[in-house]
Amino acid sequence: MSGVFGVYSKDKSVNIAEQIYYGLYALQHRGQQSAGIAVRDKDLIEWHKDKGLVPEVFKSQDLDKLPGDAGIGHVRYSSSGDVSKGNIEPLVLKYISGYMAIAKNGNIINANKLRGKLEADGCMFHTTNDTEVLAALLTKFRISSEHIEDSVEQMVKYIQGSYSIVMITPRFLIGLRDPLGIMPLCIGRINGATYVISSESAAIDAVDGEFIRDVEPGELVLIDSDGIQSRRLFDCKKSSLCIFEHVYFARPDSIVDGASTHDARVNAGRILAKEHPVQADVVIGIPDGGTDMAYGFAQESNIVAPAGLLRNKYVGRAFIAPNQNAREIAVKIKFNPVKTEVKGKRVVLIDDSIVRGTTTKTLVRMLREAGAKEVHLRIGSPPYKYPCYFGVDTSSRGQLLASKNDKETICEWIGADSLEYISYEGIIKAPVNSKVDFCTSCFTGVYPVDIPKEF
Amino acid sequence: MSGVFGVYSKDKSVNIAEQIYYGLYALQHRGQQSAGIAVRDKDLIEWHKDKGLVPEVFKSQDLDKLPGDAGIGHVRYSSSGDVSKGNIEPLVLKYISGYMAIAKNGNIINANKLRGKLEADGCMFHTTNDTEVLAALLTKFRISSEHIEDSVEQMVKYIQGSYSIVMITPRFLIGLRDPLGIMPLCIGRINGATYVISSESAAIDAVDGEFIRDVEPGELVLIDSDGIQSRRLFDCKKSSLCIFEHVYFARPDSIVDGASTHDARVNAGRILAKEHPVQADVVIGIPDGGTDMAYGFAQESNIVAPAGLLRNKYVGRAFIAPNQNAREIAVKIKFNPVKTEVKGKRVVLIDDSIVRGTTTKTLVRMLREAGAKEVHLRIGSPPYKYPCYFGVDTSSRGQLLASKNDKETICEWIGADSLEYISYEGIIKAPVNSKVDFCTSCFTGVYPVDIPKEF
Amino acid sequence: MSGVFGVYSKDKSVNIAEQIYYGLYALQHRGQQSAGIAVRDKDLIEWHKDKGLVPEVFKSQDLDKLPGDAGIGHVRYSSSGDVSKGNIEPLVLKYISGYMAIAKNGNIINANKLRGKLEADGCMFHTTNDTEVLAALLTKFRISSEHIEDSVEQMVKYIQGSYSIVMITPRFLIGLRDPLGIMPLCIGRINGATYVISSESAAIDAVDGEFIRDVEPGELVLIDSDGIQSRRLFDCKKSSLCIFEHVYFARPDSIVDGASTHDARVNAGRILAKEHPVQADVVIGIPDGGTDMAYGFAQESNIVAPAGLLRNKYVGRAFIAPNQNAREIAVKIKFNPVKTEVKGKRVVLIDDSIVRGTTTKTLVRMLREAGAKEVHLRIGSPPYKYPCYFGVDTSSRGQLLASKNDKETICEWIGADSLEYISYEGIIKAPVNSKVDFCTSCFTGVYPVDIPKEF
Amino acid sequence: MSGVFGVYSKDKSVNIAEQIYYGLYALQHRGQQSAGIAVRDKDLIEWHKDKGLVPEVFKSQDLDKLPGDAGIGHVRYSSSGDVSKGNIEPLVLKYISGYMAIAKNGNIINANKLRGKLEADGCMFHTTNDTEVLAALLTKFRISSEHIEDSVEQMVKYIQGSYSIVMITPRFLIGLRDPLGIMPLCIGRINGATYVISSESAAIDAVDGEFIRDVEPGELVLIDSDGIQSRRLFDCKKSSLCIFEHVYFARPDSIVDGASTHDARVNAGRILAKEHPVQADVVIGIPDGGTDMAYGFAQESNIVAPAGLLRNKYVGRAFIAPNQNAREIAVKIKFNPVKTEVKGKRVVLIDDSIVRGTTTKTLVRMLREAGAKEVHLRIGSPPYKYPCYFGVDTSSRGQLLASKNDKETICEWIGADSLEYISYEGIIKAPVNSKVDFCTSCFTGVYPVDIPKEF
Repeated sequence: MSGVFGVYSKDKSVNIAEQIYYGLYALQHRGQQSAGIAVRDKDLIEWHKDKGLVPEVFKSQDLDKLPGDAGIGHVRYSSSGDVSKGNIEPLVLKYISGYMAIAKNGNIINANKLRGKLEADGCMFHTTNDTEVLAALLTKFRISSEHIEDSVEQMVKYIQGSYSIVMITPRFLIGLRDPLGIMPLCIGRINGATYVISSESAAIDAVDGEFIRDVEPGELVLIDSDGIQSRRLFDCKKSSLCIFEHVYFARPDSIVDGASTHDARVNAGRILAKEHPVQADVVIGIPDGGTDMAYGFAQESNIVAPAGLLRNKYVGRAFIAPNQNAREIAVKIKFNPVKTEVKGKRVVLIDDSIVRGTTTKTLVRMLREAGAKEVHLRIGSPPYKYPCYFGVDTSSRGQLLASKNDKETICEWIGADSLEYISYEGIIKAPVNSKVDFCTSCFTGVYPVDIPKEF
Repeated sequence: MSGVFGVYSKDKSVNIAEQIYYGLYALQHRGQQSAGIAVRDKDLIEWHKDKGLVPEVFKSQDLDKLPGDAGIGHVRYSSSGDVSKGNIEPLVLKYISGYMAIAKNGNIINANKLRGKLEADGCMFHTTNDTEVLAALLTKFRISSEHIEDSVEQMVKYIQGSYSIVMITPRFLIGLRDPLGIMPLCIGRINGATYVISSESAAIDAVDGEFIRDVEPGELVLIDSDGIQSRRLFDCKKSSLCIFEHVYFARPDSIVDGASTHDARVNAGRILAKEHPVQADVVIGIPDGGTDMAYGFAQESNIVAPAGLLRNKYVGRAFIAPNQNAREIAVKIKFNPVKTEVKGKRVVLIDDSIVRGTTTKTLVRMLREAGAKEVHLRIGSPPYKYPCYFGVDTSSRGQLLASKNDKETICEWIGADSLEYISYEGIIKAPVNSKVDFCTSCFTGVYPVDIPKEF
Repeated sequence: MSGVFGVYSKDKSVNIAEQIYYGLYALQHRGQQSAGIAVRDKDLIEWHKDKGLVPEVFKSQDLDKLPGDAGIGHVRYSSSGDVSKGNIEPLVLKYISGYMAIAKNGNIINANKLRGKLEADGCMFHTTNDTEVLAALLTKFRISSEHIEDSVEQMVKYIQGSYSIVMITPRFLIGLRDPLGIMPLCIGRINGATYVISSESAAIDAVDGEFIRDVEPGELVLIDSDGIQSRRLFDCKKSSLCIFEHVYFARPDSIVDGASTHDARVNAGRILAKEHPVQADVVIGIPDGGTDMAYGFAQESNIVAPAGLLRNKYVGRAFIAPNQNAREIAVKIKFNPVKTEVKGKRVVLIDDSIVRGTTTKTLVRMLREAGAKEVHLRIGSPPYKYPCYFGVDTSSRGQLLASKNDKETICEWIGADSLEYISYEGIIKAPVNSKVDFCTSCFTGVYPVDIPKEF
Repeated sequence: MSGVFGVYSKDKSVNIAEQIYYGLYALQHRGQQSAGIAVRDKDLIEWHKDKGLVPEVFKSQDLDKLPGDAGIGHVRYSSSGDVSKGNIEPLVLKYISGYMAIAKNGNIINANKLRGKLEADGCMFHTTNDTEVLAALLTKFRISSEHIEDSVEQMVKYIQGSYSIVMITPRFLIGLRDPLGIMPLCIGRINGATYVISSESAAIDAVDGEFIRDVEPGELVLIDSDGIQSRRLFDCKKSSLCIFEHVYFARPDSIVDGASTHDARVNAGRILAKEHPVQADVVIGIPDGGTDMAYGFAQESNIVAPAGLLRNKYVGRAFIAPNQNAREIAVKIKFNPVKTEVKGKRVVLIDDSIVRGTTTKTLVRMLREAGAKEVHLRIGSPPYKYPCYFGVDTSSRGQLLASKNDKETICEWIGADSLEYISYEGIIKAPVNSKVDFCTSCFTGVYPVDIPKEF
C-alpha cells in the first residue's frame, strides 16, 4: 500500500512542494517506510526522498530547494522488510521528451515478465521497483507516439494489476487509475488555479482544497495550464475497488468513490449487530479501525460504546522490544483498557479484521485481567482467507489465521467467549452511495484478473 | 509538566532500563521535549538523556549500557522554547554518600531565592533547572544528617511549590510528593520483587505491574531490598491535586488519587449537558481531550457522539509550517471533520478547555464549511482566567483569552452559535471517588501557597 | 577525478567489502565528495554509497551487509559543486544477463550526444552521470553479443574521452582503460587467490597485495576463477597519460605506468633547479605537492630543504569560513611557516602548479611577514593555460591565471621576487622509466582527441 | 593532553566564537575526542560542545548562537577510552558572582583527595573531571575573597599537578599556569583591541595574531578592557616544561617558552647523528614526529632525507579494522614506503619515541619488504621508562616497552639492524633558546612534585 499526491498550479505564488508535503502528511497512514517529493521547475525535475516518516524526511530547507509549478509525492509501505533506497518513489527519469517523475500505489502482477522482455530488448533497470517497469514502457512507447497520452494508452495494454499513478512530464501533471479501479484516486482544486490529484479526499481537505471527483477506473487525466483533460482508456464494465479501503486502509474522513469510509464502518458495525447480536454491557472498539464499527454496533444494539481501550499515540515504527516476551509487551505499550469501563462487565470487542490474531489474543487477555466478565469478539469483515496480490500484502496463506482454521478453533485460541464475523453480503452493502463494486478476493479467492503462476 | 518513573528490583533478571523505557513511553504525553534514564549499578549511576521523544532518544544499545538494580526516568515538557541540554533530567550527581540521581515533575516557586542563598554559601550550579537546587539542598543537609530521609525532611522545610520527585541514592529508590499533592505520584509492584514509582497508574499497567496505592501528599517513600518504608513529612490538612490532571493532562486510563480520569471526563460531559443542554443532532468531541466529555454529554443528552473530527495521529513536534497562514494550515493538517456526520446538522462541539482559542476558532469555521447548520461550543472546565505557577505553564494573564474577555465576546470571536462552560461546582464533583481536593487556582486566582512577587 | 578499486577472490575467507574499503581509503586523495562499494553475492549485487569521506560513508555494519566474491568501489571528486545522490558510483544495474556494477575514473566527452541518441532509441536515464551512458550502451550491445567482452568492444567504438573503468558482471571482474591511457589503472594480486584492479599501485600496497602490471591503454581485462584474460581492443600507437598524475594527482608512493611519482617530482625539482637556479638560503615546498619537488631542487642546488611550511592535517572539506576575509583565513588555518627557518632568509618557494594563484599569493605574504628577505617562486610544471576536458576540471580559460597573464604580471600580482616554471621539455622527462607518453594539453592546447564544440 | 584557547576583545566587530574556532582548529593535534566553546555575552555565558573533531562539533549556526566579548575553547584527548559527555570542557557554572567558564590542559594529581574534602563539606559534583574540582574550590573561596584573583591565589595553594587554565568570569578573561610550567601557555594580541591566550603560539598565528609572551610558570593573567594584569602567585625557583612538548606534542611551528619546536627536533636529529652515526644511504623519518629529526640527522650525517614514508592524511579516529590482523592493516593503511627510496638501500629510520613499539615493528618489516638492505632505528628521545602523571597518559609501567626491556631485546623484537636513543644530555640541550628547564620524569622516574600513593 502507498499514497500518492500531485499538484499543478498556474499561480506562481503557490508553493508546490509545501502543498505536497501537507498532502503526504495527510496520507501518512498509507505508508510509513519512505517518503519522496519531486517538483518540475521548467525543464528540470528536482527531488528529495528518504526512508522515514514525512516530517522526518523533509525539513524546511529541503522543501525550499524544490521550486516549480508541478510536482508529485509518494509515501510507501513495504511489507518486505527493509526498503532499498533505490526503490523509494517518485522515480525521476530522463527520457526522449525531457524529465519524467512517476509514483504509484498498487502492484503490477506481470511486472517480472515485462521486465524480462524489456531486458531482452536491451533495457537496463536501476531498481527492483515495478514502477520502473512502467517508466521503461512509457519511455519506449514515447519514441513512436505523437503524444504522451498515446504512450500511456499503449502501456496500459501491457500491464496487469492494480495501479493508481501520478506523473509529471515536461507538459502535464498526470493521473491514471487501473481499469478495475482497485486503488482509489481523486481530483481536487484549490482556489481555481491549482489542481490536486490524491489517493484520498482527506488529503485534499488538508490543503484546503475542494473535492472535484474521483478519477474513474481506466481513466487517464492530464492537467496543464489549459485545465483538465480526460481520456477513457478502457471500456470498463466492472469496477473492483479494494473493499479494505473501507474496512481499514482509507482515513474515515475520506470519501472513496462516492462512499464515506466513516459511514461504511459505522454501517458495518450496525449490520454486524443485526447479524450477530450480543447481550452485553459495553461495546469497545479496537482503535483505530474498530472505533467507528463499535459506534455503529452500539447504536444498533442500544449499548454504550465509550473509549474503553486506549491507544498510545506515540507508538510508531521505532519501538524497541528486545527480549523474548517482546511481542506481548509491545501490545501492552500500544493498548491499555480503561478499567472502570470494563470491570465486571460483559464486553463486545470490535475489530475490523483478524489477520494473524496475535494482538487480538493479547487484548482479550488484557480485558479479562481488567475484570471483564465476558468478552465477545465481533469482526467487521468476513474471514480473511486468501492472499492479496494487489499491493496489500503478498503474504502466503500460511500466515492467514482464517485460511486454515475454522471459527470455533480461532475463538478458542484467542480466548473469546464468542466470535462472529460480518457476512459477505453485509460488508458489501456497508459502503452506502458507493459508485463502484468491490474486489473481495481476500474473502472469496476469486481474483478480478488472472494471477501469474509464480505467486 | 513532566513525567517521572522509577524502578527497583531484587530480581537480577529484571532489566531496569528497559522497564523504565516502557514506563516513559506510557508517560510520553506528559513531556515531548526531552527524555532521560539513569540506572544505579553498584556504586555508580550511568545515564543516557537527550532532546526528543522516548523512541528517538533511546536505541537498544543505549539501554544495554545501563545495567543495574534501580533507576529513574524523566520526560519533560518545557514551555520556555528550546530546552538547554544541561537541564535535561534526571540530574546525576556525586555527593558525600556517593552518586545520586533525581528527577522531578513540578515547579519550585522559591527556587531562585534558594539558589541565591546557596551561591552566597559557596555553592556552584551547572544548570538553570530548579531540580538542581533541590539536589544542592539535599547534598548540603546530608553532611549533618544521619540518614538520607533526614536530609529530605530538612529540604522540604525550605522548598515551596509543586513537586513529585523520584530519586536514586546509594541505598534507596525514593519517591516524594509535595505536601499539597499538586502533582500525582503512585506506587506499583511487578511480580513481588520489583517496585515501581510512577507519575500515573497507566505506566504501571504498561510494565505489566499492579497498582498498590498513590503516594500521599507530603509522603516520603523509600524502597530497597527490605521493601517500602514510608515517612509522613507533613501533617497535611488540605490536599490540592491539580484539577487539570483530570481535565486534560493525565491519560484517561489512569486512576489518580482514587478517581478514574476517564470517568471524570465522562462525568464532566454529563454535568455540562445538564447545566447547558442543547437541541442538537450530533455531539463531537475535539480529540483527544474532548472525546470522553463528548461521550458523557451525548449519553446525558440522548444525542449521538460519533468520531466526527479526525486527529492526524502522525502530527508531532516536527511539523513544518513555513508561511504566513501556517497556524491555520497546522490546524487543518491536525484535524479534519467527517463531513457526513456534520453536513446539515446542529453540532455540539466539546473541548476540555479554552486557553488562547485560536485552534477552536479554526475548528468552528471548518465545521461550518463542512456544512454544520449550528455549532454550539461546550467546555468541560470553567474559564481559565489566572496563570498557573506550579508547572503547567507560567504564561502571563495577557495570553489567557478568558482573563480579559467575557463569554459573549469569546463566543462571537470564535464564531460559535453558543458557548457555555461547566460550572465550578460541576468540575469539582466530576472526579468521583477522588480521595483528594483540588487546586483550582487557574479558575479562581486563589493559590494554595503564597506566590513570590517576582512572578 | 576519481579513484576506482575492484577485488575478486576465489578464497571464500577473503572479505571483499573490507578489502575494497581499505583500497578506497588509500585512494581517498582522488575524490572526497562521495564513496561507494558494490559487491556481487551469487546472482545479486548489493551496494552502499553516500556523500562523504570513506570512513564517514562506511561503518562496520555497512561492510558486514556486503558479503560476496567480487566487488568494486569508487571515490569521486566532482568539481561541479554539490554532487547529486543519484550520481554516486558504482552504478548498479539489472540487465539481460543479471546484475552489473560499474565505476569510472574519467570523462566521456561525447556523452551528451550518445545520451541523446539512446533516448531517441527509447532509453531512459536515472542520473546525469556519463557512466550511466556507458552502462546503457553495454546493455544495448549485450543483447546481440555472444560474450560481454564483445559488448565492451562495441561500446568502446562509440565513446570518446578518458576512462579507467572497473565493472562487475555475473561472471567477471572487469578492468578497462581508454585507448590513450589518459587515466591510470593497474592490476595486483593478494596471496594467489585474490585479484585487485586499482587506480593506483599504492592502494594495492594498502591491502598487502603485490603489483602485477599496469592495464595497458586500450586493454580489456577480465578476471574470474580461471584467472586473468586480456583483450587488446585497439591498436594503440600513442599513449597519453595525464601528466598531472605525476605532477599532483597520484600518491608519491605509487608507480604509474613504470614511473615512480615520487621520483618524477624529485626529478622535476632537480630539473627546475638546473633551469632556474636561485641564490638562496632555504628551499621550502608547499605541502603536499611541492614537498618532493623542493627536496629535488634542494639536492641539485645544494641548499637545505626543511619542512618550513606546516600543513594542518585536520583541514578537510568541512571548514567553516563565514566572513568576508574567509579565503585568506582559510589559507592561514591550512598553512603556517616555521619562523626560524624563514626569518632573515632568502627563500625558494616550490609549488607543483599555479591554477588561480590566490593561495600562492597569500603564502608569499605570510613568508614575508615571517621575515623572509626574498621569496623566489619556482613551479614544477609549465604554465597551466588550457582547460582540461578529461576529468580534471572543466574550468573555462577565464579562471586559469596563466591563460591570460604573462609570467611577469603573475609574479608581480603574487608578490614574489622572481617566478619561473619548469620547461615543457623538463616536465616531460621528469617521470623516469615511464612506459607511456603524456597528455600535456593543459600546457599546449593540443588535445589527443577532438573536443566537441559544446565545450 | 588538551588544548586551550581564550579570546577577549574590546572591538565589538570581532566575532569571538569564530576566532576561538580557528584557534581550536590550530590546536586540534592536542585533542581529538571532544571540543567546546563558551562565550560570555553580558551576564550570561552560552556554550556549545560535543564529542568529535572541531569541524564536526561546530557548524556555522552553532557559532552564530555564541555572540559576546570574551570566550574560551577546549579540545580534549582522553586516554581513558570513551569520554563522558558531562566531562567535556569548558565547564560553565553559575556561582556567587555570576557565570564562570573554565577549561584546562593538565592533570590535578590530588583531585580525588580534594573532591572528597569538598563532598564532606556539602559540595556536589556533576562530572568526574578534575576541572570541576578547581571550579568548586574557586566558588568556595570566592565568597570570602574581595577579588577573583584572591580566590585563584587561595585555590592554587591547594592543588598539585600540571595545569594551564583559561577562564571567563563576569569581568575577566583569565590565564593561569602551574608553578612548574609543566604545560605551555602564551599570550597574543590581534590589532590592539583583541587579546588571545593559547596553549601554543601557532594558534595565535592562525588567527593572524601577534605573539606577546609566554605566561610564566606560576603566573596569573587577567584581561579586561583595561588590558593585561599579571600576578605572580609563586616564587618559582625551578621550571619543568614537559620535554615531550618539544619531542612530540607541540606543533613544529610553535615557539614554546622561547624555543622553536621545529628547531628542537632538528637539533635532536643532529645530536642523535653525532652520538650514534650510521653508514647508510638514506634517512627516513616516521611522520609526523620523526620528519624534522630525520632532516637534522641527515644534515649532520651528510645523507639524504627524502619523504620516503608516506602518511595517509585521511586516517583519523573513525578507522574500521574489524578482523584479527586489524592492527597490522591499520599500520599499512596509515603508512606506505616509497619503494624507489628504499630498495637496495641502507636505511636510517628515525622516530621521536618508542612507547609500545608495535607500529615501529610493523614499519621495519614493511621497509624490509620494500627492499631495504639494512634498517637502523634511531630514536629522538631517551628510553620512555616511567609513567607520566601530568596529563600525557597514566599508563602503568607494564605497557612501556623500555621499562622492562633493555635496548638489545627491543632491537631484536622490533627486527632492526641496530637501535640507538639520543642521550639524556642530548635531548636536554636540543631546545635551543629555551627559557625554562624540563620535566623529564618519564626518562628518569624523578618527578617534580610528590605523586600520591593511589597512582
